[in-house]
Amino acid sequence: MQHTISALVRNRAGVLAESSAAFQKNGINITSISCGETENMDVSRMVICAQGSDEDIAKVTKDLQAMDFVIKLDDLARKDFVDRELVLLKVDVTKDSMCQLMQIFEVFRADVVGMGQKTITVELSGDQERVEGLIKMLQPIGIKSMCRTGMIALKRGDD
Amino acid sequence: MQHTISALVRNRAGVLAESSAAFQKNGINITSISCGETENMDVSRMVICAQGSDEDIAKVTKDLQAMDFVIKLDDLARKDFVDRELVLLKVDVTKDSMCQLMQIFEVFRADVVGMGQKTITVELSGDQERVEGLIKMLQPIGIKSMCRTGMIALKRGDD
Repeated sequence: MQHTISALVRNRAGVLAESSAAFQKNGINITSISCGETENMDVSRMVICAQGSDEDIAKVTKDLQAMDFVIKLDDLARKDFVDRELVLLKVDVTKDSMCQLMQIFEVFRADVVGMGQKTITVELSGDQERVEGLIKMLQPIGIKSMCRTGMIALKRGDD
Repeated sequence: MQHTISALVRNRAGVLAESSAAFQKNGINITSISCGETENMDVSRMVICAQGSDEDIAKVTKDLQAMDFVIKLDDLARKDFVDRELVLLKVDVTKDSMCQLMQIFEVFRADVVGMGQKTITVELSGDQERVEGLIKMLQPIGIKSMCRTGMIALKRGDD
């Protein structure tokens, strides 16, 4: 099962190594990770998507919570969050496929950020379903390169 | 100095732990990391932003290149790339500040994704300058929570 773990962590060298070692120890593969600065310079927010049984994930979150640099940890599956992901896609383009491509980009509201002789590069931000929907549409046309950020999320409401 | 390293890596447990251990070993703090799937199921793309001297970063990239799971590694500073980052921001809002906020969101083309009694949540994707510009504008008004993906990038042109 896919789990999404969001953690506020103190910003120092080694945090990422120790956190990801906790996943490795339990043999859990991290599907995606996003870690960036927050409103507080000394704190980073880390969002990890991982595949694993509920028991294995529970073990990892317990290990993580025991680490001194973890300030707060949430398992996003249980709460109400706004989630977003960003993807950059470089797609093969020919004179014949151009019109079809542009229609797909319009439907998904993907922005063209670059254009070459044989390829076109677009960005899309949205929830995972929307991002995966666009990828599925573009796969038969030919994706040359792709780069995804992994999911980020904020709790809904005022808290 | 800020460095951005982009690597294509084989998708297996432990990759993240071993890569981030290489940074820790050299005492380099990772500012942000984004690791997600690519067009190939077995391969992930990892983009790491890190602060360090050119020599320290050179040591780390050499260590990384020697690892069996690294397929390709680029130091983005030297090349021509499209870079993008995604941020979710929850900002304090009052009747008085609402109008000013909406104007800022329009200038930066940030999308409102949630609204509460006392806060408003927006998303913005753009290059680092644009993302940091919005954050700088919102800081005096009051950022309640923030979540950044870290930078992702694709090479410009058809390659």
